[in-house]
Amino acid sequence: MNRVGTAVADSRETVEQWGRFELVLEGPQEGNPFQDVRLSARFQYRNLTMEAEGFYDGDGVYRVRFMPDRPGVWRYVTRSSSPELDGHTGEFTCTEAGEDNHGPVRVKGRYGFAYEDGTPYMPFGTTCYHWTHGGNTAQEELTLQSLADSPFNKVRMCLLPTRDMPPPLQTVFAGSSPEDLDRTRYNPAFFRHLEHRLEDLLKLGIEADLVLFHPYDKGWWGVDNMEAQQDEMYLRYCIARLGSYRHVWWSLCNEFDFNKFKTVADWDRLLQLTQRFDPYQHLRSIHNGTKMYKSSNLYDFTKPWITHQSIQHWDAELTSQWRLTAAKPIVIDEISYEGNSSRRWGNISGRELVHRFWEGASRGGFVGHGESFIDRETRAWISTGGRLYGESTARIAFLRRILEEAPPEWIESPGEGSWRLVYFGRRQPGSHWLELPAEGDYQVELIDTWEMTILPLEGLFRGRCRIGLPGRPQMALRARPAGAGSTEGGERG
Amino acid sequence: MNRVGTAVADSRETVEQWGRFELVLEGPQEGNPFQDVRLSARFQYRNLTMEAEGFYDGDGVYRVRFMPDRPGVWRYVTRSSSPELDGHTGEFTCTEAGEDNHGPVRVKGRYGFAYEDGTPYMPFGTTCYHWTHGGNTAQEELTLQSLADSPFNKVRMCLLPTRDMPPPLQTVFAGSSPEDLDRTRYNPAFFRHLEHRLEDLLKLGIEADLVLFHPYDKGWWGVDNMEAQQDEMYLRYCIARLGSYRHVWWSLCNEFDFNKFKTVADWDRLLQLTQRFDPYQHLRSIHNGTKMYKSSNLYDFTKPWITHQSIQHWDAELTSQWRLTAAKPIVIDEISYEGNSSRRWGNISGRELVHRFWEGASRGGFVGHGESFIDRETRAWISTGGRLYGESTARIAFLRRILEEAPPEWIESPGEGSWRLVYFGRRQPGSHWLELPAEGDYQVELIDTWEMTILPLEGLFRGRCRIGLPGRPQMALRARPAGAGSTEGGERG
Repeated sequence: MNRVGTAVADSRETVEQWGRFELVLEGPQEGNPFQDVRLSARFQYRNLTMEAEGFYDGDGVYRVRFMPDRPGVWRYVTRSSSPELDGHTGEFTCTEAGEDNHGPVRVKGRYGFAYEDGTPYMPFGTTCYHWTHGGNTAQEELTLQSLADSPFNKVRMCLLPTRDMPPPLQTVFAGSSPEDLDRTRYNPAFFRHLEHRLEDLLKLGIEADLVLFHPYDKGWWGVDNMEAQQDEMYLRYCIARLGSYRHVWWSLCNEFDFNKFKTVADWDRLLQLTQRFDPYQHLRSIHNGTKMYKSSNLYDFTKPWITHQSIQHWDAELTSQWRLTAAKPIVIDEISYEGNSSRRWGNISGRELVHRFWEGASRGGFVGHGESFIDRETRAWISTGGRLYGESTARIAFLRRILEEAPPEWIESPGEGSWRLVYFGRRQPGSHWLELPAEGDYQVELIDTWEMTILPLEGLFRGRCRIGLPGRPQMALRARPAGAGSTEGGERG
Repeated sequence: MNRVGTAVADSRETVEQWGRFELVLEGPQEGNPFQDVRLSARFQYRNLTMEAEGFYDGDGVYRVRFMPDRPGVWRYVTRSSSPELDGHTGEFTCTEAGEDNHGPVRVKGRYGFAYEDGTPYMPFGTTCYHWTHGGNTAQEELTLQSLADSPFNKVRMCLLPTRDMPPPLQTVFAGSSPEDLDRTRYNPAFFRHLEHRLEDLLKLGIEADLVLFHPYDKGWWGVDNMEAQQDEMYLRYCIARLGSYRHVWWSLCNEFDFNKFKTVADWDRLLQLTQRFDPYQHLRSIHNGTKMYKSSNLYDFTKPWITHQSIQHWDAELTSQWRLTAAKPIVIDEISYEGNSSRRWGNISGRELVHRFWEGASRGGFVGHGESFIDRETRAWISTGGRLYGESTARIAFLRRILEEAPPEWIESPGEGSWRLVYFGRRQPGSHWLELPAEGDYQVELIDTWEMTILPLEGLFRGRCRIGLPGRPQMALRARPAGAGSTEGGERG
């Protein structure tokens, strides 16, 4: 579907709904085209128009990418500061989405998510910050295989390099060492590789939660302390290149409050710019770094440009409180990682991480995974991917299967509807009074969240019922209307 | 040593230091002697005088009890509103304390405790609120045996009955049912039985943390909503009868904030009265009931009549914060109990309770134990005593042995001295940078807090040392100056 140096209208060219149309143009190479040339295209379907910025891809090649969101014939016309690039017109036909293409993930209701076509989506995220940066193809393929075998359907990944990564290195910017880094030019090779990996994730059905800024530079590459205009150019370049990937989320910054060069007003501005330049309105949030007990330092997620709450906190019980503070979905992207790092953020046990997943989930929040084993064949999944060694992954898969059986409205009032998940955590009561609706019959199942068993209890329940429990920790009860699921046949693995 | 109806001075009579002298007098029986007759005695040793109130013990018998705090000849003279009781004089000889008698427990330094003779004391408390109330001698003897076999050296126990306890019942007050309860008269038989059990605890070396009020009456016995004068009379009667037991602590109220009839000003007044009438200045505190996350509702422990912080909270990590809030010892008497109760306060696992003990202890706080198994031969240790079934008790004994090897000054700055306990809790780092003083040699041991093993690491350490760890949760490190303890010979149970 590439179109080079031409403006021929050819509506036989087809692009799937939420797929990617790409217009390729040749243009000026002199000066700094990244900075000097403005290019965009207006796409029109009937009376709907959407504007997408283009970007310079090096070697005189310019591209405008566009993700059409409805089937039919789309027409476009380019606008550019360069006469060579201005006024190109054309059209293409957008076809129905393919079988595994449900569109971008959107907020649904107050606390949930769904794909744009209405298919339910619950984030079960993991983190591999720099898995695409090391230039190690075998490791990247291994990471993809690990993800394919895992329950994870979202991965947090960074664009900017960190101090830990020694040059020479392909980075977002032109140059490969701190000395020759040019923060006004980008590195098409870096982005092409990233896009290749984004395509791989898309095939696996994994959302890419792109972390655009982070505070881990520590005066090395200088990318955490750029001029406001450089920040904005970089941001718009990322949106122009990557926004047409339907599975992209914008995480403006990781641990934003650890960056001492920027203020909350700076982040507000960059988030608002993202809102303005992203034609598709991908999910947008920002992730705090403040330590436990300082939850008041979370970003104010009620701000209108924030779509969901991206939280670092180690106490999943606060999920209930955060839901009251802002009526937006809760994604606890960092709750400490399973592993044996000497750092506090990376050394909880698998059992503890699974406990936190259930604590958050049963309160209507989505907890994120990470691993940081530092003495295995592949080190620190959260940094570079590789293999998964932990005990939590299988249990998270188990939790995901259970939660995905909930009706979509469950997330709106997880403790009150007709489908209930009651989690006992570190408690081990010998019995529990389950408060079911007085009307209707309910099935109740006893879930061992660690052993991954589901034991249907005999009989049907309604109203206030005393349920016997085995007196072990990390147990849960699920209640749902009789007939809602096939749970006959004794203990299931 | 009883002296009935006489004022003979007989200095051959001897009482051990911190033992109990008792003067017995006969006096008026008409009216309400509990209310109408005032009696006290002034005890004098050289130029030191102490005043102790007496009490009516029924059948025309009055007693004045006194705990002398130094050896030598003590003289006394009574004062009374009744001429029969007024002006009795006498003397006795106080001898040196016996081998197992170290006097009352006092606050030592800012955060520690010691017996009055200087012997170290660290509270490892448990709770059996009403173990003396049921009239079941076999169960009481069993409770004593369980305590004798346990690491616990303090027990919280209530004087007032609860709604759950059906009449007929011997209570603090005259009468045995809510209808005939006379809150202006006391029940000598109840107190004699209580004193018998206090003697049993004293023989076991267990401190009696007496809970004088509680909010569990719920309109039944009417003892949580008495007139101020009735509260004061009851309080003074308890002090007069029980204050001479050297192992008594005054816990003014359990979960004071759940009593809606009384204000903080009421508790201030009752605590100040305790301070005024107790000649021995036993430890004094008050215990909150407010749920997690509302730690601001703890009593203001900086008030001068409070000797130590008696806390209910489920997060032992806050110990560090409480130490900053008030420079007084931290006793977390309720942190949830091991058990299988359906109530949240009584159903954590043994592993979780042990975790909380270590979390509190390593931060310089003393955590309290309780058990609430509701389906065993003897039910709910925290209510009625009986047998201990949990997995935590043995591990608490293990922790106690370790802590009691610390130098007394350790509690003042648990993370900084030359004797260190570093607890990793739910974390499982593969290694840890231990920051030891640059001078001197240190031994380091790896402690498995659950398996109860202590593994001395090879070699000696100083300065900043990287210590390899096994990557399991609930591990700890102990560091201490080389030669401070004999830890050779490999793994110890």
